[in-house]
Amino acid sequence: MAMTFKRFLVGRAKRTEQAIHERLTKRTGLAVFASDALSSTAYASEEILLVLAVAAAYGQASAFNYVVPITLVIAVVLAIVAISYRQTIHAYPSGGGAYIVAKENLGTTPGLVAAAALLVDYVLTVSVSISAGVAAVTSATQGTRWAWLDHHRVLLCLILIAFIAVANLRGVRESGSLFAAPTYAFVFSFLFMIGYGIIHYFLYPGSVAPITPENLNLAEGYELQPLTLFLLLGAFSNGCVALTGIEAISNGIPAFKQPEARNAATTLTWMAVLLTSMFIGTSVMAYFYHVHPHQNETVISQFARIIFTGPMGWFYYVIQGTTALILILAANTSFADFPRLASLLARDRFMPRQFATRGDKLVFSNGIIILAVFSGILVTAFGGDTSRLIPLYAVGVFLSFTLSQVGMVRHWLKAGRLRVPAADKPEREEPAPHWKKSIVVNGLGALATLIVLVVLVITKFIHGAWIVVVLIPLLVAMFRAIHRHYLDIATQLTTEGLTGLRPIRHEVIVPISGIHRGVVKALEYAKSIAPGHVTALYINFDEEATQKLRQKWERLGGGVELVVLASPYRSLVGPLTRYVDRRMKTHQDQMVTIVLPEFIPARWWHHLLHNQSSLMLKGALLFKPDVIVTSVPYHLKSRR
Amino acid sequence: MAMTFKRFLVGRAKRTEQAIHERLTKRTGLAVFASDALSSTAYASEEILLVLAVAAAYGQASAFNYVVPITLVIAVVLAIVAISYRQTIHAYPSGGGAYIVAKENLGTTPGLVAAAALLVDYVLTVSVSISAGVAAVTSATQGTRWAWLDHHRVLLCLILIAFIAVANLRGVRESGSLFAAPTYAFVFSFLFMIGYGIIHYFLYPGSVAPITPENLNLAEGYELQPLTLFLLLGAFSNGCVALTGIEAISNGIPAFKQPEARNAATTLTWMAVLLTSMFIGTSVMAYFYHVHPHQNETVISQFARIIFTGPMGWFYYVIQGTTALILILAANTSFADFPRLASLLARDRFMPRQFATRGDKLVFSNGIIILAVFSGILVTAFGGDTSRLIPLYAVGVFLSFTLSQVGMVRHWLKAGRLRVPAADKPEREEPAPHWKKSIVVNGLGALATLIVLVVLVITKFIHGAWIVVVLIPLLVAMFRAIHRHYLDIATQLTTEGLTGLRPIRHEVIVPISGIHRGVVKALEYAKSIAPGHVTALYINFDEEATQKLRQKWERLGGGVELVVLASPYRSLVGPLTRYVDRRMKTHQDQMVTIVLPEFIPARWWHHLLHNQSSLMLKGALLFKPDVIVTSVPYHLKSRR
Repeated sequence: MAMTFKRFLVGRAKRTEQAIHERLTKRTGLAVFASDALSSTAYASEEILLVLAVAAAYGQASAFNYVVPITLVIAVVLAIVAISYRQTIHAYPSGGGAYIVAKENLGTTPGLVAAAALLVDYVLTVSVSISAGVAAVTSATQGTRWAWLDHHRVLLCLILIAFIAVANLRGVRESGSLFAAPTYAFVFSFLFMIGYGIIHYFLYPGSVAPITPENLNLAEGYELQPLTLFLLLGAFSNGCVALTGIEAISNGIPAFKQPEARNAATTLTWMAVLLTSMFIGTSVMAYFYHVHPHQNETVISQFARIIFTGPMGWFYYVIQGTTALILILAANTSFADFPRLASLLARDRFMPRQFATRGDKLVFSNGIIILAVFSGILVTAFGGDTSRLIPLYAVGVFLSFTLSQVGMVRHWLKAGRLRVPAADKPEREEPAPHWKKSIVVNGLGALATLIVLVVLVITKFIHGAWIVVVLIPLLVAMFRAIHRHYLDIATQLTTEGLTGLRPIRHEVIVPISGIHRGVVKALEYAKSIAPGHVTALYINFDEEATQKLRQKWERLGGGVELVVLASPYRSLVGPLTRYVDRRMKTHQDQMVTIVLPEFIPARWWHHLLHNQSSLMLKGALLFKPDVIVTSVPYHLKSRR
Repeated sequence: MAMTFKRFLVGRAKRTEQAIHERLTKRTGLAVFASDALSSTAYASEEILLVLAVAAAYGQASAFNYVVPITLVIAVVLAIVAISYRQTIHAYPSGGGAYIVAKENLGTTPGLVAAAALLVDYVLTVSVSISAGVAAVTSATQGTRWAWLDHHRVLLCLILIAFIAVANLRGVRESGSLFAAPTYAFVFSFLFMIGYGIIHYFLYPGSVAPITPENLNLAEGYELQPLTLFLLLGAFSNGCVALTGIEAISNGIPAFKQPEARNAATTLTWMAVLLTSMFIGTSVMAYFYHVHPHQNETVISQFARIIFTGPMGWFYYVIQGTTALILILAANTSFADFPRLASLLARDRFMPRQFATRGDKLVFSNGIIILAVFSGILVTAFGGDTSRLIPLYAVGVFLSFTLSQVGMVRHWLKAGRLRVPAADKPEREEPAPHWKKSIVVNGLGALATLIVLVVLVITKFIHGAWIVVVLIPLLVAMFRAIHRHYLDIATQLTTEGLTGLRPIRHEVIVPISGIHRGVVKALEYAKSIAPGHVTALYINFDEEATQKLRQKWERLGGGVELVVLASPYRSLVGPLTRYVDRRMKTHQDQMVTIVLPEFIPARWWHHLLHNQSSLMLKGALLFKPDVIVTSVPYHLKSRR
């Protein structure tokens, strides 16, 4: 029945050869890999405003004006990171995720730290994107008769996560055809909104709302305070979520058409340009229209509502719809990335090996399920509120950025250093071309992301970043413990030194409670596996019954030796285990098989009508090495 | 750990020979067997008053006067039943419980009906006695600072039931020394109270309370109504609980000293006399002192409070204490009777055979546990309220009385009829002496108890008797189903026609996922149980790994044939079961053993790090006849 339900949920199994290797053009590649990064424009500007609102509510209404300069600073960081990653693409054309780059160049521990940061990051991508997607939908319901949906955000989030998880278990692939339409629809409608908004601003200056600091939604955990450098850094930190997902292309280079690296690098540039313009555009719009964070409506929804009026009113819904869609796609990318990274870690024996096996649909099912469970827990714990999740989010991202960039610096150092010739490699290696310039680029990237990381941890520590700071070392410790266990097992199980199979001394004990067809079958089986070394064991509870058994044994015992044990306390397990222990001591390399006659009733409730002695015996003997317990089933038929 | 807890709870195991066969004198026999019957005087009169209170509250205060005539009618029934049972004792000196008498004389179904009625009755004895015992205690707390105990009656009941159950699991025996003191203390203090009360009544007529119909406690389920015949019959039905337990002696005759039957019969007479006088005495006292049922205080507690004042005040607590004690003893008798009857039924294959096995302490542990569970449920469901349980109680008792008495009539008819000489018994049997007189006595008993039974069912049906009326046929159906199952199994398992052990064709399949020490051990084992008939089975997921395995196999395979199966859907179970099916078809009488290499991790959480494939395989192969799955454990060591 469980199988039937599984088939209904995930569909028919796929053959191993069905793995599709679709190559992406630059255009489809952008759609597939950019959804995560581009979708963050749906909330990045708002997260900056939320912190500035703290000062605005304190009385400094002008604080909101800082949104544009902060956005510009973030855009500079974005440019540095994008250029750095272009270099990673060329250096690791087979895919340069932070785990691989850090592990190869910095060692195992930095690699595991990057991996832990990424896993946490993927869980948060799902939680944040889904929460923001749901917020886009519920914002659109404000003032309509669907406004009550706003009270069920968590439930909506959980339904969406379950939906995406099932789709992925069914084997949805990151196909260009699936991603292209929503991604480009989002990009074009968003860019149209920004252009239209700027024109609208100069044509109808009256539509600008007055600032009303009373209804402001503030970033959680801040007390009202004047604008300080610390507050500005906090706003900057929040805005840095715009950079999440920018590394996606560097993980997926082999998916591009040839020349893979060149195509990937070009796509990355395009993505960075689009991301920067949309992010700056959104912040400028917020500045123009005096839009401020509100509990039940997103910032984008607010100014889309202001500018799209009259005959253009329908376009408001286009904006909200495409925003919600791209956010769902962004969550979907984590459902490909998380299981893939988990499978890499499992193959390197840092995670349970179950994460490395492909399910019916050729997907890493266990990774998908775990991701859905954890992101579901996170969404529930944080009430489906994007802004409460943000402080946890960017730390992991920037930690992996930093490790990856430092790793690249190390990479170029190694590539550039004139190596001392090794014994097996007599010729000197040539240093890679441009290695000095590359060090500068990646070094700058490393420095920028490190500074952001430090700022993030300092300004967001008490707002939730501490959770990630605590979690990542724990995860690394777990990876290491798992690794030790697998290494230990490999050592214990190694076949080194073995030359073949040794013969075993083997005898069989059949505990019986009488003679019936089930016992006869067990005895036949026992004789077949160890002819001449079988003993039947009977526990004497009642002298009369024992005498009867001895008589019957003459006729049916087939020459098998019958041993009768006394049991003054009417216990079965005690005398039996003591007898087995005695037999085990007779020889070295002695193995004892306990053959248990067991009948399998036709109906489940019949089990209640029989002693569960065989279960007790199995439990008692399970932990004895070189004792093997075998049930010989006798299948009873139902009367009807 | 579970074992340690069990030892702590029930103490050390007893040897089979430790079964003590203590014989009872008439005096100790009365103490052991009469507690159930005598204890009902603690609530029987009150139950009559509860129904009469319905009319009193309606306005007919004189309704209470009927308590004495009703009690006298019940006393007459009691006398008839006692005399009938004296005859049963002489006819069945080895113990004449209703189950045995009805089964032998009327057939299996009446026997099972009687057994079902008795089992229900035993559960109710525990529930009713414990509830009444707790009521005796909480009554005594009224007006003291312990009055709050009254709100926790259910909890107190459950604690007491658990205590008695544990005591019985520890092997408390119905020893005269344990029972004598509380039983005689109860009898003497109760008789003293009645005598003292009558004298007190004539000396201090002013102490009689005025009737206050406002504070009356009424029998549940009755609307206020004038006194009708139906109401009187209802009161009579309630009072019939006084007869419960009167049959106890006839079950336990072999426990008496020789001459057993004579001693038992004399003891029964004594018990009946004591019971009648205490019951009548209580009702007369209630009549004299105008005591009426009250929610928080028993009737006995009320008049004990009235008469024992001043220097005699302490005797009130003696009464309440001995009442509580005898009620607990009464419950305790069910803990001997229920398991004993269940073991009889189990031996006759009408109940699961687990009820027939004696536990560590030589007691029928399963019966004790089941009784505690069911009576605990009942007490909880009925809020620990004696009067709500009474309507369920007497139906089972009188049903078993009636069946037992009808069975005795049949017994005398058989004994008296001049039999046609059978082929193997050439002489005519002499009719038993006095058989005609005996038929009259038991016939009268049967008639009286049948009438009471009909009255009970009619007057108490809607108040709860319907539960028992529905339950008993269900129990009988269950007994029959269990019996059919055991007969069916016996037929299927019979060794008739078998002459010895047949040789079996046997081959072994070892599914492997690679070669390691666990696999090597499994192969060694497989070779030892079927030399020359072992196949190792490998599922090909990855061509490269398969090639490597083949090379290693040359060195380590020990000549065992290696079969590699394709698995396009990466499934393990599918290809394996299909292969096994193919092998099974090669020969008739073919048995296949699947030897699974399985390593047992040193720590529980290590299980999470390994595939549970062997579990899945076991599940898939469990229901195939002639396929045997054997795990060869390889015990891993912990590193520390």
